Amino acid sequence: MRASVLRGGRMVLRDDVPEPVPGPGQVLVAVKACGICGSDLHFAAHGDDALAAGAQMEGMPQLGDTVDLSADVFMGHEIAAEVLEAGPETDAPPPGTVVTSIPALISQTGVVPIVYSNSVIGGYAERMLLSAPLLLPVPNGLDPRHAALTEPMAVGLHAVNRSAITPAESALVIGCGPIGMAIIAALRLRGVEHVVAADFSQTRRRLAQTMGAHETVDPAQRSPFEVAAPAVVFEAVGAPGILNDVMRRAPAHTRVVVAGVCMEPDTVMPFYGAPKELSIQFVFAYDGGEFAETLRAIAEGAIDVAPLITGEVGLDGVGDAFATLSRPDEQCKILVTP
Amino acid sequence: MRASVLRGGRMVLRDDVPEPVPGPGQVLVAVKACGICGSDLHFAAHGDDALAAGAQMEGMPQLGDTVDLSADVFMGHEIAAEVLEAGPETDAPPPGTVVTSIPALISQTGVVPIVYSNSVIGGYAERMLLSAPLLLPVPNGLDPRHAALTEPMAVGLHAVNRSAITPAESALVIGCGPIGMAIIAALRLRGVEHVVAADFSQTRRRLAQTMGAHETVDPAQRSPFEVAAPAVVFEAVGAPGILNDVMRRAPAHTRVVVAGVCMEPDTVMPFYGAPKELSIQFVFAYDGGEFAETLRAIAEGAIDVAPLITGEVGLDGVGDAFATLSRPDEQCKILVTP
Repeated sequence: MRASVLRGGRMVLRDDVPEPVPGPGQVLVAVKACGICGSDLHFAAHGDDALAAGAQMEGMPQLGDTVDLSADVFMGHEIAAEVLEAGPETDAPPPGTVVTSIPALISQTGVVPIVYSNSVIGGYAERMLLSAPLLLPVPNGLDPRHAALTEPMAVGLHAVNRSAITPAESALVIGCGPIGMAIIAALRLRGVEHVVAADFSQTRRRLAQTMGAHETVDPAQRSPFEVAAPAVVFEAVGAPGILNDVMRRAPAHTRVVVAGVCMEPDTVMPFYGAPKELSIQFVFAYDGGEFAETLRAIAEGAIDVAPLITGEVGLDGVGDAFATLSRPDEQCKILVTP
Repeated sequence: MRASVLRGGRMVLRDDVPEPVPGPGQVLVAVKACGICGSDLHFAAHGDDALAAGAQMEGMPQLGDTVDLSADVFMGHEIAAEVLEAGPETDAPPPGTVVTSIPALISQTGVVPIVYSNSVIGGYAERMLLSAPLLLPVPNGLDPRHAALTEPMAVGLHAVNRSAITPAESALVIGCGPIGMAIIAALRLRGVEHVVAADFSQTRRRLAQTMGAHETVDPAQRSPFEVAAPAVVFEAVGAPGILNDVMRRAPAHTRVVVAGVCMEPDTVMPFYGAPKELSIQFVFAYDGGEFAETLRAIAEGAIDVAPLITGEVGLDGVGDAFATLSRPDEQCKILVTP
């Protein structure tokens, strides 16, 4: 079957990928839509750095196999799919059901994240395996292309939940890419009454307003901290220098939530943090409850993801889509619809 | 009168400092003991960097006048003193009362921290001004030399309070200088049942045990994170590189409390923080309640500060004491007793 894989830093279409076979507890699905995530772009560009840092890191169990960048890497973790066939002795929704899932594959040897792998096929493929216990049927006849955005929108909900922001507190979202947008949508879902969004791109600032930002700022024109004295700042850029700039400008006692995944070293002045007693909370992913709540919010119309979808490509268009997304002014979320 | 002042990066004894005169709400006191704080050493060495960073920092009101490093700078903020004379229309304890105070001088133009100033005299002097509303009489006939440690010990209590650590959670204290020691004492005061302390110096590790650490580790021998999987890590070193090392090694969901004041740029890998969802809380100083609670704990014997006092000098010995303290293996807290 066909799949787009990372090979030597570029996305390449293959037509010779062996058909995946579901084991016990697994389900074979046909991918209906898979979003391209910024972290996939980062990984394609800085995968070696990320793997080296990951190898250095202690304090976490190693999940899944080590990724070998000299072999093909499967990616794609924002998935909506149609059930084709359950594995042996597996209780699963009937064939034809449209589902989404936390991107993790449960097998007899453990749980493997569906994110970067030489062996576990991701969503940039015609078919893949998902885990029956993790499947969420997509309700309300929701378009699978919209259901595919459950995953990135859940990242935003988790970041907002972790911030413990209250409706009366002001939020500043720095960076209006897909994660920034997900944070804006989640802030509105939680009833936050003053959401300011900052991005250099006018297109993205307009989209941020569509998603619910009350005010937007072009940082080239003025400091976002002049517009709002935020209680919580969401850093959704993930590039070196941003965190230090936030630390320098933020008011005393600001809670900084780092949702952007910077894969390069970053330099800060700790001296900015001390007298202002800043807190910095790194956030990552979501839990099952947040994922399910996000799907419900999208299906019930509480979060409208349609404006975020700015492009759609087939499996043969993934390479070009990666290139397009590296020029962020033009696009927000591109879906792969195999 | 006499005072030791910072001049050109060194502490110099002056005998021509004009006698301070208390204004309304102020009290003239005779300094009985003033601790030398690590931040004074940092400021003597890196004052220009600290002032430059402070000038760049937004989000905080400027407190006090700008410090001019080309003029003499008064320092000394860990103070125990005897009341000599109250200013006009000032309600104050009677002369002869031994007091301590949050180091801040209230005047008709506002509140000035007693920390680094070209005009407000600090505790490295024979006499100085304190603020009547902030004075705490030292109870139980407590030795003024012990009362002078209220201020640094309150820094530790504040750090522990901010961490929201519970007794059953493990704590790791990295760096056993005076602030590390204050954190260890406060952790024991709060009933924390597993306190691990790490320092390269054997002298300091022994002192940490005296102050209540249940286990100590020499990081040259093994990683402190092999000894404990801490819920909270207190970074009490304040040197570049420590924070990144903590981020790399700490278990998932560790709360990192930064109590060391690093006045230089520091480089971290944000990528370590994300998947482990680390939080980093910068802490600074204390509130009035924490200061008063610390004084009570010392006066009632719940915190024994005596082992921390490793030296005592007159005003003419401050310069040598700064030099001695820059070799941290030999000393912990040196008191200036004018």
